[in-house]
Amino acid sequence: MRILGIDPGSQRTGVGIVDVDGAGKMTHVYHAPIDLLKGDDEFDADALREQLPLRLKRLLRALGDAIERFAPAEVAIESIFMARNADSALKLGQARGAALCAAVMRDLPVHEYAAKEIKLAVVGTGGADKAQIQHMVGLMLNLKGKLQADAADALAVAITHAHVRATARRLGVTARQAWRK
Amino acid sequence: MRILGIDPGSQRTGVGIVDVDGAGKMTHVYHAPIDLLKGDDEFDADALREQLPLRLKRLLRALGDAIERFAPAEVAIESIFMARNADSALKLGQARGAALCAAVMRDLPVHEYAAKEIKLAVVGTGGADKAQIQHMVGLMLNLKGKLQADAADALAVAITHAHVRATARRLGVTARQAWRK
Repeated sequence: MRILGIDPGSQRTGVGIVDVDGAGKMTHVYHAPIDLLKGDDEFDADALREQLPLRLKRLLRALGDAIERFAPAEVAIESIFMARNADSALKLGQARGAALCAAVMRDLPVHEYAAKEIKLAVVGTGGADKAQIQHMVGLMLNLKGKLQADAADALAVAITHAHVRATARRLGVTARQAWRK
Repeated sequence: MRILGIDPGSQRTGVGIVDVDGAGKMTHVYHAPIDLLKGDDEFDADALREQLPLRLKRLLRALGDAIERFAPAEVAIESIFMARNADSALKLGQARGAALCAAVMRDLPVHEYAAKEIKLAVVGTGGADKAQIQHMVGLMLNLKGKLQADAADALAVAITHAHVRATARRLGVTARQAWRK
């Protein structure tokens, strides 16, 4: 099964895709950061900086392209209980809302995992730092070189869901039930 | 020109639609709150309470339906600079992100107005309260009875954009330029 992991951010959103087979073996498919401030043929860089709706359109488009290209069956995203402050929470919330729209408008099931759950699944301890996650994601998926941080986080949440999925399959329960055990 | 005003909220999102003619005369077209926690044929109420992605899907669907049905040319939405706290900012941000997606995925231009600008346009003073807005919106659009608060706020931002549009037309400038004058 193919899983799309998303690490939403108001300036950069990470995309990570992994395949997991029935035995729980994972294979890296794709990863990249989507830079919401970077212009291209369709989007003007100055306009992107000034207009939030345009940045969300860029995000929706880029995620939609990844979904069309790789056809994931499920989506995994970090759940956020508390942000640093109201201003960053608002920005993060809008990017997260747009990212979720890209998934739900295509009827893809969305699974949410807390940061602690992701660290536990990838590094083995709920208190792991960013560098440890980048390192372990690279090891688990046989990737060479340093991973871009947002793409690594996106792969990490996809790996978390792959783990939970594989466990659920072994136990004959749903992913949600497996995680609660 | 037909304007769709949106007042995004994580539990209830207001929708308000007005027409404005070349002379700046406004006509009420439609208003309603979208209750994101209320189930229907497609959405289960318990699932809506538990799953944010599903609430955003409901919001995206309801706004999409309104856009298809009334075919507005432009969208107006309140800009938010500061929310009460990080938790409510995150919730509001996600709803706002989804609402913006409903507009940008259909290539509708989005105009943002600060709360103060909306109060100034509708009541005439930047310090107006909710009740004054509801009252003035009702008067301006010849509506009878008490308006639901979120729908009134959605109509208010649509009216604000209609004002700015009409002024711009008279002055022969863009809406954005008119507001800065």
